[in-house]
Amino acid sequence: LIITLTTDFGSSDPYAGAMKGAILSVNPRAQIVDITHDIPAHDVERAAFVLAAAAATFPSGTVHVTVVDPGVGTDRRILAAATREHVFLAPDNGVLKYVFDGHPEARVYALDRPEYFRETVSRTFHGRDVFGPAAGHLSLGLPPEKLGTPFDGFERGTVSRPIRKQGRITGEVVSFDRYGNAITNIPAGWLEGAAAFSLRAGAEAFESVSRSYGDAAPGAPLLVAGSLGTLEISVNRGSARDRLGLRLGDRIEAAVSTSGSHAGRREA
Amino acid sequence: LIITLTTDFGSSDPYAGAMKGAILSVNPRAQIVDITHDIPAHDVERAAFVLAAAAATFPSGTVHVTVVDPGVGTDRRILAAATREHVFLAPDNGVLKYVFDGHPEARVYALDRPEYFRETVSRTFHGRDVFGPAAGHLSLGLPPEKLGTPFDGFERGTVSRPIRKQGRITGEVVSFDRYGNAITNIPAGWLEGAAAFSLRAGAEAFESVSRSYGDAAPGAPLLVAGSLGTLEISVNRGSARDRLGLRLGDRIEAAVSTSGSHAGRREA
Amino acid sequence: LIITLTTDFGSSDPYAGAMKGAILSVNPRAQIVDITHDIPAHDVERAAFVLAAAAATFPSGTVHVTVVDPGVGTDRRILAAATREHVFLAPDNGVLKYVFDGHPEARVYALDRPEYFRETVSRTFHGRDVFGPAAGHLSLGLPPEKLGTPFDGFERGTVSRPIRKQGRITGEVVSFDRYGNAITNIPAGWLEGAAAFSLRAGAEAFESVSRSYGDAAPGAPLLVAGSLGTLEISVNRGSARDRLGLRLGDRIEAAVSTSGSHAGRREA
Repeated sequence: LIITLTTDFGSSDPYAGAMKGAILSVNPRAQIVDITHDIPAHDVERAAFVLAAAAATFPSGTVHVTVVDPGVGTDRRILAAATREHVFLAPDNGVLKYVFDGHPEARVYALDRPEYFRETVSRTFHGRDVFGPAAGHLSLGLPPEKLGTPFDGFERGTVSRPIRKQGRITGEVVSFDRYGNAITNIPAGWLEGAAAFSLRAGAEAFESVSRSYGDAAPGAPLLVAGSLGTLEISVNRGSARDRLGLRLGDRIEAAVSTSGSHAGRREA
Repeated sequence: LIITLTTDFGSSDPYAGAMKGAILSVNPRAQIVDITHDIPAHDVERAAFVLAAAAATFPSGTVHVTVVDPGVGTDRRILAAATREHVFLAPDNGVLKYVFDGHPEARVYALDRPEYFRETVSRTFHGRDVFGPAAGHLSLGLPPEKLGTPFDGFERGTVSRPIRKQGRITGEVVSFDRYGNAITNIPAGWLEGAAAFSLRAGAEAFESVSRSYGDAAPGAPLLVAGSLGTLEISVNRGSARDRLGLRLGDRIEAAVSTSGSHAGRREA
Repeated sequence: LIITLTTDFGSSDPYAGAMKGAILSVNPRAQIVDITHDIPAHDVERAAFVLAAAAATFPSGTVHVTVVDPGVGTDRRILAAATREHVFLAPDNGVLKYVFDGHPEARVYALDRPEYFRETVSRTFHGRDVFGPAAGHLSLGLPPEKLGTPFDGFERGTVSRPIRKQGRITGEVVSFDRYGNAITNIPAGWLEGAAAFSLRAGAEAFESVSRSYGDAAPGAPLLVAGSLGTLEISVNRGSARDRLGLRLGDRIEAAVSTSGSHAGRREA
């Protein structure tokens, strides 16, 4: 079975390797897939986003382990969350907020069975001593409910939601990628029926959705339906972040017209 | 079967993980090997070089997937190129130029069978929606010709070739590695019969080929037969790029004498 | 069988991929696990530390390959070191110093059987041409003694040891991690029986061991038992390296009192 890893361990310390060894010591046949170890240190918000975006494509039965865990060794709990298709192991710090939001059916357990942990458990490296071995046991077929006790008081986090009301859409920039694309939380479908619209991001206004990055001239900004199904503000072969001076959390607003009138002109 | 990945996705976004999930959803037993996800964004030239250098060592039957694809979602095609031993999946943008150059036997297909793609195909992430699933099917044994239609109008790119003529060799710097070694396109064998030679790179002249990096004093420049079989300009435990001020595409010239006379002196 | 890789190849060159291909060409079912390819170029000391810290958690039978090898192609030997549980392949440059220190039972061989190497062996890339194929053969069950000749003259390196004498402990900072934690070589157990102590690191003095990073206020320095069993100087959600101005090799001293008197005060 497949185990994915999403951590802030970085790639130059022994931590990711030690955790893989701990998994393989329990199940030498586990298929370990790195999602990333380059979450910025302690950045729970970023880890939540990356995990949710990457986990969705994995086959049924996959175990997703997320270790961005500034509270390691304190009394914060470790959760196993079983959705219809996957099992998630993570500290109880909100890093699973998109999982909980998208999977109301999730059954959640707080880990408390040391027989599935490493023989000695440190207070500073639960990736190696708790998450890794527990994931190894899950990949051997252990049902998640064997790892702990049902738990309902977990941190659900806050998922920022876009608003659509009387021809106005309001959302925000929820992520940037390495290309400098600004990913918003506005579903691309919200503009689909529109006769016309004007969407503002920084000083730029967009009045159409491009089909692909390459549909704009190199260096030109564009609006596109991104890979997560939400609107994305991009610059063909360039960085929208740098070019438009966007930042995480920036508000994105659109005026939408469903008649034939031109929303963009009405805005001006 | 083995599937290798060469992309410009970087290591901190969800993209590489999502693509692996899409592969494993088709073939949960696929053996995925990262060549690199750290190609500079949109750098097709660099991807072509890294892919060719790494792919050669893989066993027969390996599927090599390259996604450096600024044209994603435009009408650029996606290619499957079957050489004697391997299958390559890549956008039709020249990233396979060394593969085509080295494998005139390659059969090339343009992908057009959506039954081997993801159920919904976005216009912004073909790595997840087309390349990944198609690679998964190849790793299950699907013959490459099932993925598409024979296609001959693909981008062959330009492979810069070294010249040897009347005792003069001209080549160029085609790559740097992380150590700062300058990799040229001049076959190391071209200097092998020489009685004497002088090779100039920047302000430096070399009159012998060292056997290994460690044969020069620490900090001293040297010329060596690199791991790709071409001449490499290096500095022992240092960076030839920085020390000699070399840049990509810099011309490298050598005067070669096959008699006993000293080419280096003749140059001076 | 599992093969781990610890190298200074970086992640943007073809080298790590080419080495994996060379392994898989010998054993297509080898399970390759990256410990890291981001050891700083030529940094044998750092590689020794990371390897030792990560290797310990892997199951019996694992083959650990370390290629940080500025002497590649010179007459430096390549070693296979078989401990009770693992086999280590590495250049003879001290990178196995912690392995030798912790495993006096290790049997060591110098590789000299070209039938287990790649058909053509370059002088500049033994990772691909020697280490990779040899590791592939080990993962197929080849006993390490078949790879070479018993060898006793290998580089043992120097392992810096902490000192405990008459209530004084002296150690040093042996590593930093990406969080900026300063890892010392002082066993955490050395402070366990103490009635009181004062440990100095830079301008800071610690008189207690915290249970976890989160037990200090955000931004506050703390002393903790790290994941390797030694004392670690940390800053909760911050960098001890930056905040305390620590450097590799910095001396760490502690005065320990086993009676009821307060060591910290005695120092002041």
